[in-house]
This record gives sequence, C-alpha cells and structure tokens, in this order.
Amino acid sequence: MITVHHLNNSRSQRILWLLEELGVEYRIEHHQRDPKTMLAPASLKKIHPLGKSPVIVDGRNTLAESGAIIEFLADKYGKELGLAPEPGTPERLRYSYWLHYAEGSAMPPLLMSLIFSKIKTAPMPFFVRPIARAIADKAMAGYVGPQVKLHLDYMNAELGSRPWFAGKKFSAADIQMSFPIEAASGRADIDKYPHLAEFLKKIHARPAYQRALEKGGPYELMR
Amino acid sequence: MITVHHLNNSRSQRILWLLEELGVEYRIEHHQRDPKTMLAPASLKKIHPLGKSPVIVDGRNTLAESGAIIEFLADKYGKELGLAPEPGTPERLRYSYWLHYAEGSAMPPLLMSLIFSKIKTAPMPFFVRPIARAIADKAMAGYVGPQVKLHLDYMNAELGSRPWFAGKKFSAADIQMSFPIEAASGRADIDKYPHLAEFLKKIHARPAYQRALEKGGPYELMR
Repeated sequence: MITVHHLNNSRSQRILWLLEELGVEYRIEHHQRDPKTMLAPASLKKIHPLGKSPVIVDGRNTLAESGAIIEFLADKYGKELGLAPEPGTPERLRYSYWLHYAEGSAMPPLLMSLIFSKIKTAPMPFFVRPIARAIADKAMAGYVGPQVKLHLDYMNAELGSRPWFAGKKFSAADIQMSFPIEAASGRADIDKYPHLAEFLKKIHARPAYQRALEKGGPYELMR
Repeated sequence: MITVHHLNNSRSQRILWLLEELGVEYRIEHHQRDPKTMLAPASLKKIHPLGKSPVIVDGRNTLAESGAIIEFLADKYGKELGLAPEPGTPERLRYSYWLHYAEGSAMPPLLMSLIFSKIKTAPMPFFVRPIARAIADKAMAGYVGPQVKLHLDYMNAELGSRPWFAGKKFSAADIQMSFPIEAASGRADIDKYPHLAEFLKKIHARPAYQRALEKGGPYELMR
C-alpha cells in the first residue's frame, strides 16, 4: 500500500487529494509543524534527507518533490480516469508545463512575499522597525510584488482561455496548480482574478478534495 | 527547425547545451539583459507573457519552463542517445525527480540568498545600511543560509552515491541540475562539496557544453 508522509498545512495536501481522485488505497503518516516556528519536525528527516513533505513510499520506491510524485501516481493509476493526458498530445505538453511551472515559477515569488511580510512583523527594537518596513516595502514594490502580480494575471488569463490548466478536462496538473493559487488566495484579493476564484470554487466542490481535507486536517496556507 | 529564445546568463544556456548533446539543428534568437537592472528585455514578452527565458518554438509548439522543455526535447530526440531514461525504470523516476527538484527545491533558497545579498549592497542612506545588513544577515543566518547548505550537502551526497543524477549514465537531468550547481558555485565555496566540484569539472569537459557556451555567450551566474 502507498504511504504518504503528510505535513499539516503543506504541499502534501495535494497528494492526498490526488490519491482520493485516483481511488487508490493509501495510508497517511502524519507529521506536525512546530507550532511556534512553523518548521517541519525532525521526524521527516528520517524519511528523506531534506526533511520536507510530501514524500511517498510505493513498494520499493520512495519519492519526493510534488511534481514528480504527481506525475508518477497519475501515470501509474490515473490514465483511464484521464488524470494524466496521453503522451504526444497538446494536452500532455501543457500538463507537463504546469506540473513544472507551479513550483518552478509561481511559488518562488509567493514565498518571497511571505518572507518579506515576516520581516516587517518580526520582533525587533522599535527604532529598527520603520527601517525594516521600508526595506521590505522596497523589495516588494520593486521586485516581488510585480512578479506576484505578473503570475496571477498570467494564470488568470490562461484559465480564461480553457476550462482547466491542461485543456478541456480536469487533470492532475490542476491538483499541482492548486497550491500556488490557494497560497495566493491567502495573501492577495483573489476576487480581482475571476478565473482563479472560479477555479478555487470548482476544486473545493470536488468530493475527492473534500475527503482529502478531512483526512489531512486543517489547510490554511501562508496567512 | 527549433528556435530557442536565449537570454544571456540565464536558464536558457541549458537548452542550448541539451540541443548540442542531441545533435539537433536549431537557431538562436538572442535577447540581452538590461546591463543596469539585469532584467530581461521587453522583446521576450512578445514571445511569452511572462517575459522569461528559455522559450522554444518547435513546429506548432511554443514551450516555456526549463524542466518541461528538457523533458520534451529529450523524449522526442534523445531516447536513443540515452539522454531520457526509459519510462518505468528506477532511472526514469530519479530523472523526473531531479527535473522537478532543480527549480522547485534547489533554486528558491539560492535566489533568496542573492536577493538578501543585494539588499546589503543596495544604494541607501549611510545610517540605514547597518540595519539593512543586520536584517539581511539575520534572514540568511536563520533561514536562507541553512537551507542553501542543506541542499548543497544533499546534492553532494547524492552524487557521492552514483556517477550522475539519474544513475550510471549521463542524462538530461544532469543538464537541468547544472543550473543550481553553477549558480551555487558563484556564491559558495564549491570545493567544500567535492562531488559537486567534480560534477562541474565533468560537465565543463563535454564538447557539447563547450559548443553551447560559444553559441550562447558568456555565462556568469549570480555573482
């Protein structure tokens, strides 16, 4: 049976959702973030040297990295369900593109935006705070903010041109792409991006998404 | 014929290298960074809405995102050369993992380290600089620095356990992974990581790497 090493409020929520869509049996090994630092616990280090989540174990294979896990599981168990488009099709090309784009391009500016907002609110002497704020605001205004907006505009436009990321049908690329969009919705006014807001509404309505949420526990990203 | 939209000192250098390994005919459309801001020029926006590089055009397909481009090209032209391992093998699983890991996990901390080092040296009033330095140093010491080290240690250990990232044979995953390692070598003392230093030596000696460098122009990352 597949084991998912699941960390609360993390990228591994996607893997539970995919497995629910696939209807494959699996068990969850729960790992909890340190409530103060929000960092992953040492228990995850025993599973994978980077100490990150998700990691899955499927027979002899131990695999990390959301995009690689999703590609592996959807190809192995999801072809008939259409969750992994056929190789050689335009859908497959887009599918592969979004699997890489989610973590390789969309997440880094969102992560930086989180870090600069933490810099603004970190404990520090009162006379330092205005300067810390000014530095963080400058980085946000000059680089991070425009990057975040560029990606949100782009994803919104893409979903305006077809119903799902890979094409007309829901695929595992939508599961991979849910993470940056859910993360952005915790930090930006997502209603300014109607196709992204609609995407979130559609995925939240899926029974498999809801079952995964029940099993994975609360899911509040980047607030 | 394949067109590569190439930006100097960027991720697209990898694509030139892959095409040289594949022995496929291609043409380069050159785009130059703004020498002051180091940002990509507006010309790239006409090719792809994100204005980033690499982007390739192969027949009717326009494709961005290094990992997706490499997967596509290596599967289409590189199977006989062994640049893309056979699906269903342990090599293919590792291959897919490293294709995702390079940009999804290894690059974000390296990028953040670059941004914090820019914060320390940005033009600012003299009385602000010590505070900016202190903030950047704290972010580096508390989060970014340990993350960079974790990944360098990890990649080094992985290359200690097998000759190339996917297995015994050189593959396109090594091309994808060259970017974070070359970027790290511009910012860290890479000789502390003997397997990474050895990896760089081996790839720099490949004739295809050298031909790509001649065609792509100078390649100095993150200095």
